[in-house]
Amino acid sequence: MPLRPTIAAFGQIDGQLAVGGVPLERLAERVGSTPFFAYDRALLTGRVKLLRSTLPPRIRLSYAIKANPMPAVVQHLATQVDCFDVASASEMRTALDTPLPPANISFAGPGKNEASITQAVAAGVTIEIESATEAGRIVQAGGRLGLRPRVAIRVNPDFEVKGSGMRMGGGPQQFGIDAEKVPSLLADLAAADVEFLGFHVFAGSQNLNADFLCLAQRRTVDLILRLADKSPPVRYVNLGGGFGIPYFDKDQPLDLRAIGANLAQLLETAIQPNLPEARVVIELGRYIVGECGVYVTRVVDRKESRGREYLVVDGGLHHQLAASGNFGQVIRRNYPIAVGNRLCEDVGEAVTVVGCLCTPLDLLGDNVRLPRAEIGDLIVLFQAGAYGLTASPTAFLGHPPPLEVLI
Amino acid sequence: MPLRPTIAAFGQIDGQLAVGGVPLERLAERVGSTPFFAYDRALLTGRVKLLRSTLPPRIRLSYAIKANPMPAVVQHLATQVDCFDVASASEMRTALDTPLPPANISFAGPGKNEASITQAVAAGVTIEIESATEAGRIVQAGGRLGLRPRVAIRVNPDFEVKGSGMRMGGGPQQFGIDAEKVPSLLADLAAADVEFLGFHVFAGSQNLNADFLCLAQRRTVDLILRLADKSPPVRYVNLGGGFGIPYFDKDQPLDLRAIGANLAQLLETAIQPNLPEARVVIELGRYIVGECGVYVTRVVDRKESRGREYLVVDGGLHHQLAASGNFGQVIRRNYPIAVGNRLCEDVGEAVTVVGCLCTPLDLLGDNVRLPRAEIGDLIVLFQAGAYGLTASPTAFLGHPPPLEVLI
Repeated sequence: MPLRPTIAAFGQIDGQLAVGGVPLERLAERVGSTPFFAYDRALLTGRVKLLRSTLPPRIRLSYAIKANPMPAVVQHLATQVDCFDVASASEMRTALDTPLPPANISFAGPGKNEASITQAVAAGVTIEIESATEAGRIVQAGGRLGLRPRVAIRVNPDFEVKGSGMRMGGGPQQFGIDAEKVPSLLADLAAADVEFLGFHVFAGSQNLNADFLCLAQRRTVDLILRLADKSPPVRYVNLGGGFGIPYFDKDQPLDLRAIGANLAQLLETAIQPNLPEARVVIELGRYIVGECGVYVTRVVDRKESRGREYLVVDGGLHHQLAASGNFGQVIRRNYPIAVGNRLCEDVGEAVTVVGCLCTPLDLLGDNVRLPRAEIGDLIVLFQAGAYGLTASPTAFLGHPPPLEVLI
Repeated sequence: MPLRPTIAAFGQIDGQLAVGGVPLERLAERVGSTPFFAYDRALLTGRVKLLRSTLPPRIRLSYAIKANPMPAVVQHLATQVDCFDVASASEMRTALDTPLPPANISFAGPGKNEASITQAVAAGVTIEIESATEAGRIVQAGGRLGLRPRVAIRVNPDFEVKGSGMRMGGGPQQFGIDAEKVPSLLADLAAADVEFLGFHVFAGSQNLNADFLCLAQRRTVDLILRLADKSPPVRYVNLGGGFGIPYFDKDQPLDLRAIGANLAQLLETAIQPNLPEARVVIELGRYIVGECGVYVTRVVDRKESRGREYLVVDGGLHHQLAASGNFGQVIRRNYPIAVGNRLCEDVGEAVTVVGCLCTPLDLLGDNVRLPRAEIGDLIVLFQAGAYGLTASPTAFLGHPPPLEVLI
């Protein structure tokens, strides 16, 4: 049986999943304990290469650190992408520890307090203004520090994007400045001692429909051109991202070429003629790292209960909450799963894979068809590179935190 | 407007919520940073008193540490309850650090590995067997250590309980030994060097319907009497718990008196005549601590977007995931919420309270009616004493972890 593309991308050695070229059982010995997350450096590099070769060369790639803030991953991506986006002071520190210049770091997100804004001004990163309050805090911090804050406006667009896993633009939002309020904020900023760079419009995330994303990009450019009419020269245009990855059997991978063609046309016909100084940024988190990581957990028990076979593993939702279906999902579906040390064996059974937590929520694979696994075998959950460890309740029930490795 | 009972239980001082008798703004200064969790010692004590006075005196109370493992809470409850239940080696350490004797600690949960079983045997706690594999590991550990393990059997009942927020018994389960397989396990244990104590049947959690819980207890006792027919004398009967607390407006508090009457009858007519040596345990987590804690977070921004008023606070789902509706809930409903420093002010607006995370999931109060709050005010989420901090993805977006205090 051919491996699913998600699994095949890692490759196999002697029937074992390979991560970074290391067969899984050896990798588990090297890590020293299960469960763990493993990220594949070559897949990360390849992912950025794919983006570079498919999107127009003028597009600058920003990595949204929130998707996976592991320092080694961020350091590697600093050699691959052009910019970082950070959502907290801690993520900002991680980004500032890389060779990327502070000017290439954007700081977005609602609720930025005085302390984090002061840090951002001192660091010289680009602060994306999400409210009038934040604008005031930025100006004050600049005055206190004797520095000219670099700012952009995050805009809540006046349109919505279909097909997003999470909608973050259009209608009322906690994110950004409503498009119709931007001119007034621009007037306030013109009177303040700040360096205005441009706009960021982010309409949603985890979208697998290229048509919807292309439409969103067109409408975003339209909106930015309208806003630019009354703004200083625009040097920064962040079109957001929202590129989805396939998690479930029914999901089709995103048609990246269609997005590349759309962006090329937008650059040529709209952005370059009207905003010649603008650096155009696509900001991606999940799309860059999501498919490059696996969560590996060991079978500690197998049992049969009233006709149902169970594998109990030493991991669970405390490490990979999304795979249990309990993080924002309405309907639970199985993430791609495999017995990592029996990758090429035939399917032998339908089995339910549960974690070691004492809650029925801790379900990692519901009635999945796998080769027959025994105690000691390694169960692998795929699509674990983004929103895995940090998006999970690691302290739940007090099990030790898992390790993370980049190979 | 009268305060809701959940809120009124804490009391107020000069219009501020009081926790442990300390008005909220002073408490926030004492803690030194927001957000934080605050647990009320007197409410914890009162909760156990309520249970003691309503349930029959012979019932022993066990606290399931997984609900809230804060060491100070566990130390206080060690003076109030009879037993602890733990679900991991780490929770076992927390329990062993209290004055309660190891024999009064039960260790339950699927996927217990060799290391944690060895620790449990060495500690002398009661290990609840959830599979044949675990039974083997316990016997081996006892042999290696030259100790006689104390064991009970966790039984997956042959009935289901209606009305539970989470069903954990009946049908196929990863939890416990199917009732029909217990006789065979008992025969195996009889041949092994272990001290058999009795049975634990736990059918579900967060149940607000006393009729369903009473029926479950009756069926549980029936089942244990049947199993006891072929077992050594039963000295431990853990009837589980599953007592729910009201989270939402529509929820009615559990009728504890009905449960007390049912238990009294079961003790008199079934347990005492048939299992005279049995210690009868009710195991509760959420019911003991859930209503005794609050999550306190400060307003850092307020903004209007297209007709909707938003309060942005410095906390969010990374600390109190369940209140955002993203932890196992199908439909999102608002947890009880208040402006803690304006407790007695009239409702001034309908407002949406969001956390500081850059995700639309971070919604703490959807269109809630509150006194008008300003930046710097303290928003309080109630029912935060159980499955709060440890059941939340604290590392998500890298904000500092909140503090916890017991007052």
